[in-house]
Amino acid sequence: MITRQLCHTLDVSDPLAPLRELFDLPEGIVYLDGNSLGALPRSTAARVAQVVQDQWGTGLIGSWNHAGWMDLPQRVGDKIARLVGAGPGELIAVDSTSVNLYKALHSAVRLARLQHLERDPQAGARRLVIVSEASNFPTDLYIAQSVARETGATVLALDADAIRPWLAAHALPRPGVPGRDLPPRATLDYDLAAVLLLTQVNYRSGRQHDMGALTAAAHAAGALTVWDLAHSAGAVPVDLKGADADLAVGCGYKYLNGGPGAPAFIWAHPRITATLHAQGLSQPLTGWIGHAAPFEFGPDYRPAAGIAGFQCGTPPVLALAALDCGVDTVLAAEEQGGMAALRAKSVELAELFISLLESRCAGAGLTVISPRDPGERGSQVSIACELDEGCAYPITQALIARGVVGDFRSPDVLRFGFTPLYTRFVDVYDAVEQLRQVLVSGEWREPRFAVRAQVT
Amino acid sequence: MITRQLCHTLDVSDPLAPLRELFDLPEGIVYLDGNSLGALPRSTAARVAQVVQDQWGTGLIGSWNHAGWMDLPQRVGDKIARLVGAGPGELIAVDSTSVNLYKALHSAVRLARLQHLERDPQAGARRLVIVSEASNFPTDLYIAQSVARETGATVLALDADAIRPWLAAHALPRPGVPGRDLPPRATLDYDLAAVLLLTQVNYRSGRQHDMGALTAAAHAAGALTVWDLAHSAGAVPVDLKGADADLAVGCGYKYLNGGPGAPAFIWAHPRITATLHAQGLSQPLTGWIGHAAPFEFGPDYRPAAGIAGFQCGTPPVLALAALDCGVDTVLAAEEQGGMAALRAKSVELAELFISLLESRCAGAGLTVISPRDPGERGSQVSIACELDEGCAYPITQALIARGVVGDFRSPDVLRFGFTPLYTRFVDVYDAVEQLRQVLVSGEWREPRFAVRAQVT
Repeated sequence: MITRQLCHTLDVSDPLAPLRELFDLPEGIVYLDGNSLGALPRSTAARVAQVVQDQWGTGLIGSWNHAGWMDLPQRVGDKIARLVGAGPGELIAVDSTSVNLYKALHSAVRLARLQHLERDPQAGARRLVIVSEASNFPTDLYIAQSVARETGATVLALDADAIRPWLAAHALPRPGVPGRDLPPRATLDYDLAAVLLLTQVNYRSGRQHDMGALTAAAHAAGALTVWDLAHSAGAVPVDLKGADADLAVGCGYKYLNGGPGAPAFIWAHPRITATLHAQGLSQPLTGWIGHAAPFEFGPDYRPAAGIAGFQCGTPPVLALAALDCGVDTVLAAEEQGGMAALRAKSVELAELFISLLESRCAGAGLTVISPRDPGERGSQVSIACELDEGCAYPITQALIARGVVGDFRSPDVLRFGFTPLYTRFVDVYDAVEQLRQVLVSGEWREPRFAVRAQVT
Repeated sequence: MITRQLCHTLDVSDPLAPLRELFDLPEGIVYLDGNSLGALPRSTAARVAQVVQDQWGTGLIGSWNHAGWMDLPQRVGDKIARLVGAGPGELIAVDSTSVNLYKALHSAVRLARLQHLERDPQAGARRLVIVSEASNFPTDLYIAQSVARETGATVLALDADAIRPWLAAHALPRPGVPGRDLPPRATLDYDLAAVLLLTQVNYRSGRQHDMGALTAAAHAAGALTVWDLAHSAGAVPVDLKGADADLAVGCGYKYLNGGPGAPAFIWAHPRITATLHAQGLSQPLTGWIGHAAPFEFGPDYRPAAGIAGFQCGTPPVLALAALDCGVDTVLAAEEQGGMAALRAKSVELAELFISLLESRCAGAGLTVISPRDPGERGSQVSIACELDEGCAYPITQALIARGVVGDFRSPDVLRFGFTPLYTRFVDVYDAVEQLRQVLVSGEWREPRFAVRAQVT
């Protein structure tokens, strides 16, 4: 029998508990929506104020040099790199996730085409496929559709479980290894895998893909991988280099606590940036800041080497300063074991949540749709409600009225994100108790909770 | 004889003078670089602090609805629209200038191709040209090069004076009007004009193009126009609808005072967004926020109608709040005559600057390279120095050491921007006097001014 007192005891003995003090959380709120918008770090207000007043107000244009504004995307990027298994100078904080997806995907399709042609000069006649997941976050699919149109590729959005079989069926023959023969030109299977585009942790279900295995399967098919880390950077241990991934993008305003609409990030394996450079290729958003020598004001674009060539416009300094503070809150856990320790607590929080849900809300019409194996789950638990059509929205609203902030996804999914930096075990207890009361009382059916004005 | 006392008198009688109080300018600095980075409005620090602390910290995810975060790009865009002759709902504050250029140019080339094909089914065999200015700001040319590669067009960067003749030579025959015949396929002139891409005010020389006349010439050649308003929004009166322009982009951190790396903006004439919509086309950066119904999370991209379809990623809230404050400083002039009054003062400031320069720095080796006709000039005066190769940098540094902040462009151009919101007539006097002393003393030749670390 799990009691609130027991949860309190868990918090008292939790070595990560002091990290909650890094955040400015409103009193009396249980915030389980850090996977939509991370909470405000205590350091952010002063840092942003300093950038505004001292660096901009007093330093004016000189701050581009004297306050290090120009290097901010790389400095913040190097910090994020430590959280996702990337090296210094490989990852940069720029633009939005969607814009970065366009750069990454566009580059990946072009490189994949070159690779296929190098292997087989006839490959040009075959259709290149961007493989993704049907339930991927929409922006990933939307950008894939656009890049496919621009590059002459096509998008194939598969069920999660169908991805590995598809890649296996499209594995390229390897010298000395028996493999499938090239199918006849008339068959559908004449397709070539160009890019595997996946969000590592699904925004809706919380299901986590095996980055290493899928990357290997993609590579065996001659495809490059583009990983969207929106729900994994700062949430689960990520090892981009260990998984041998090719490109990745991620979000600054979820688990990295960078603030609403914070700059996103993009990473490319050094072999990718080196190949682009060697081939004289650049990502398509060739703005001046990605130029090898932006202040020479030359007439022709010449991309900077490495990830710096994935920059485009002038860095958004205020937003980058806030993101820097957010990333620092995650790095602050390094002394207590870093991402591994955060992940361990995240799993404990989620397991506690599921246990409590099953014991205290049994028979209430809720079903956990996130994988039950923590190894296959991100840092969230999603629940389907079988009460009424579209009940997830009013239940979420009724919970918010009780001070428990979760999120929903139409029509019937409740989503609870666990941020071990500031989520306490008692928060989990209180969340389930409030959810129980919302369901038992039926208050969520009150008309006031039905009014819709939902965002992100 | 212009004295400092006379300049002071001009300030005292200047009805725009009180607007300087809207800014937080450092003591003892003459800031003539608002065309690189606008000064800090007094209202910004408190507004950003409120967004950080109250909206993000306390309101958390709910602020997307309750604090109106989602509408910020359009609300700020509607304000900017009032400064550039655009209607409400036509202009939106998003992404960077470079990213917006990509969206605008890409859309324009595709629409131009459709238009040409509609007129002449044989047009598909002809080369589409993006016409620009050789001395355009590099990011415009770089993005044009990328869009040309993606769309199969080509970029032609002409001298400013060669643009109108080129367009005239490529004017399409009109029914009933004698015009040139279609040239034979083998000639170079087989090109079709697709897009005229110009920065209205040149960043280096300050030369201002005639938007109306050039747009008409472009339209006569079957081309669409993309205007970069980086150095004109908030600096000179702009009338996009009056000029019948097609698309435009602009910068938030120069004359709009939005802060370092502020969000940029994009505008499209309603006929352009309507045509895109009717043709089922979308700009290429098809992120979820530009979707007609982003929160339905549907699998296929369907662009929002109007300029909203030019959004891509999640709006950068902190940066937009700062930009909002910056735009408000320009709108604050509306009671005193708005952009027309600001422009009149800008011209007076620049004319004063040139007069003083010619009288007090005669023989010092300086030549005004901006047009002498104020009607052909933006809100800056650029000067070539014929002293030493690369002298512009150390002269600028020596001036900064004396408290006069201008800018330089390699190798020999000094650039002084006039922001009538906060630049005083005495500032102009003092700037010329300090410049005179820097030149007379020869102090700019001291080694300490030669160390290079320049940005934007």
